[in-house]
Amino acid sequence: MTSKTGISQPGPLSDLRIDLDRIKSDVLTLAEIGRHENDRGIYRMAFTDADLEGKRWLGERIDAAGLDRRVDGAANVCGVLPGRHPERPRILVGSHIDTVPCAGALDGALGVVVGLEVMRTIRQHDIDLAKPLELIAFSDEEGRFGGMFGSQAVCGQINPKDIATRTDHDGVHLKDAMRQCGYDPWAALDAARAPESIDSYLELHIEQGPVLDRLHKTVGVVDEITGLFTWSVWFRGEANHAGTTPMEMRNDAFMGLADFAHEVPRILAENGSERSRATIGKAQILPGAVNTVPGLVEFSLDVRDTSEDTLDDLGIAFRKALSAIARRRSLIFEFEQKSRLAPVACHENIVRCLLQEASRLGLEHQTMPSGAAHDAQVMGSLVPVGMIFVPSKNGQSHSPAEWTAWTDIEAGANLMLHAILKLAGDHSESKTPRPL
Amino acid sequence: MTSKTGISQPGPLSDLRIDLDRIKSDVLTLAEIGRHENDRGIYRMAFTDADLEGKRWLGERIDAAGLDRRVDGAANVCGVLPGRHPERPRILVGSHIDTVPCAGALDGALGVVVGLEVMRTIRQHDIDLAKPLELIAFSDEEGRFGGMFGSQAVCGQINPKDIATRTDHDGVHLKDAMRQCGYDPWAALDAARAPESIDSYLELHIEQGPVLDRLHKTVGVVDEITGLFTWSVWFRGEANHAGTTPMEMRNDAFMGLADFAHEVPRILAENGSERSRATIGKAQILPGAVNTVPGLVEFSLDVRDTSEDTLDDLGIAFRKALSAIARRRSLIFEFEQKSRLAPVACHENIVRCLLQEASRLGLEHQTMPSGAAHDAQVMGSLVPVGMIFVPSKNGQSHSPAEWTAWTDIEAGANLMLHAILKLAGDHSESKTPRPL
Repeated sequence: MTSKTGISQPGPLSDLRIDLDRIKSDVLTLAEIGRHENDRGIYRMAFTDADLEGKRWLGERIDAAGLDRRVDGAANVCGVLPGRHPERPRILVGSHIDTVPCAGALDGALGVVVGLEVMRTIRQHDIDLAKPLELIAFSDEEGRFGGMFGSQAVCGQINPKDIATRTDHDGVHLKDAMRQCGYDPWAALDAARAPESIDSYLELHIEQGPVLDRLHKTVGVVDEITGLFTWSVWFRGEANHAGTTPMEMRNDAFMGLADFAHEVPRILAENGSERSRATIGKAQILPGAVNTVPGLVEFSLDVRDTSEDTLDDLGIAFRKALSAIARRRSLIFEFEQKSRLAPVACHENIVRCLLQEASRLGLEHQTMPSGAAHDAQVMGSLVPVGMIFVPSKNGQSHSPAEWTAWTDIEAGANLMLHAILKLAGDHSESKTPRPL
Repeated sequence: MTSKTGISQPGPLSDLRIDLDRIKSDVLTLAEIGRHENDRGIYRMAFTDADLEGKRWLGERIDAAGLDRRVDGAANVCGVLPGRHPERPRILVGSHIDTVPCAGALDGALGVVVGLEVMRTIRQHDIDLAKPLELIAFSDEEGRFGGMFGSQAVCGQINPKDIATRTDHDGVHLKDAMRQCGYDPWAALDAARAPESIDSYLELHIEQGPVLDRLHKTVGVVDEITGLFTWSVWFRGEANHAGTTPMEMRNDAFMGLADFAHEVPRILAENGSERSRATIGKAQILPGAVNTVPGLVEFSLDVRDTSEDTLDDLGIAFRKALSAIARRRSLIFEFEQKSRLAPVACHENIVRCLLQEASRLGLEHQTMPSGAAHDAQVMGSLVPVGMIFVPSKNGQSHSPAEWTAWTDIEAGANLMLHAILKLAGDHSESKTPRPL
């Protein structure tokens, strides 16, 4: 790891820092694309006009930074810094710039802007790295058409049926929305990359949870990304008059749900880990009249943990509880798994590197799991991944109130810079080892 | 109690029976008024065209039965059998003919038809009673405009503001709907009767609950009509990401509701009676996303008992539980009482008379509370009341599946006949004593 000229690099590499003003400018400019006048929320959902405008803006920034711009078949916007050995496996760094409706300025966008700034800094200082770097902004992470589209395409997890059948909540087809933006949807099948072409994937993201903020930590080093399963559950009882039906003659579907919710802490304590989460976020009670004993409830169960085995154990325990409650209350119980995502461990070398650099930079840091799904989770099925979290004020996200102190953003970006310098500067021919 | 002629009364009065065929014919004819072709439900909501058609049909049946027809200011349809002493306080018998949307054939209608048949039988056999009888079909019992309108008007509980402001769910004003039917809404203020003019009020109604059907009883003798209060309750917590928010950092509003529902059986056991009911029939969970910890729940609580003191005790216990749960889970709790109805005891003389006659007629009967509100509950605030229940098949009501075996209807009607013969046949000048 040497400088070719020495002119643009006044001190040793370890003193190198990103330029926060450029990050600020990029974050605030991008935040105006898709911004709604009234609620101040950002509406840059995948393959909308605003998303397309964001992709164009990012392309211009990539050009301005002197990176080799390309857009792959899944409309992922990329910028390459080829370095001395452009043929070697690349270190990818990025996130996404599409948003949920009424989003804040940082979810996804910050990871892309920080990746850009890191590469801009490295190029500006003319630092000669052993591995090529590539900035990548993945398409539709947030799920207008299901989510993780861009990273799934890179990992070869998109098939023709996905392209033909994925629709948004309004019934708009993915393929039509892509065409409207000028993309060939079938080209997404060409976006798959050989695992050998990628050294690793690094992503900085806002935490979207309260942990770092409450612990007053500047950065989080993610060691595991939680897996999850979600269920739809039904209890069917009998709707009856609330006044005329004695308590002991009821088959009250809602009371089945209440019994189940009451068991959740016990089930987590008995079968889960300190990283387990279980949430009943949605419930519909029918017929839903004040004076009628509920005859049917449908509710959601969202269960997460960083261990596949723990998820399995939790699934068995939840099913047992539902079944016992149904028997006790003479209800009929059904459930359907709506989604399942395997947990992904960040690569131990990358985690170690991030922790070492965080210590060296004097950052208050915290090793922690990611409770939310990210592109890194998809990429982690193919290549070694690492993630940096920065604190979310009050844990808020997916809202215009989403924010992170600029000083924390600066700290996170510098950690990304130095981790990449370390990981890419290794002159040995060996790549970062594959996950086991 | 004697027959004037003896011709139409072949045996002793105690052998007198109503004519089930006439009841069948009336019930089935009335059930066609407002019947929907597709769902077979009856839509005879108060002050609709169908309701007006029902009132006209009833007027014709009253004329045909030789009763003195009148319609009071609240559009209650009445038919009087003046007897020997028309100036004496009257025994009122009846119910209502308006329905909920998609109703069955019996709720309310059966009580009116049975009252008509009882008076028809008495008149046909030319039986000379000491007290005048009056059939009454009350307006809007079911609540298009709040419910119990006709009986409240008779009891002087309707004021000008009620008439001016009551609206249905679509915003239609009571006063406009009444005018459209040809009634002067302000005349409802003239419907109030002097308590001295009424001896008592008797009502036969379907049980609308499962008790008689499950116990295989033919009739129920109601001793008390339950009072109730209904609350709207809010728990406010904080909406957060289901994956990124550790269990111990949550303010999960839904879990507050689950805790509360779990306490309901304990609260009833500690503070209630075997006649207590508590129902959470309606709940809205916000924002209501699978992957979001609920930040707000609004739910209903419907609590009933036959004792005012028990209702008060239950109210205190429920409030304590809500408050403790809110503290424990760092939620904000609010509640609002949406309605309150005092319990009403049926008059002991009438209850005793019904039980004696049921035994004499050899009917399998059951003393029981009424868990639902009826016109008898309103009338009970003014005059002595009594109620007869007939079984509801599977406890079903407010549905086209609502039904009662004709043999049980016959038994209930004969019980009403003989109770009225007993109560009205008393030649002494004294009325049934007032409630304490």
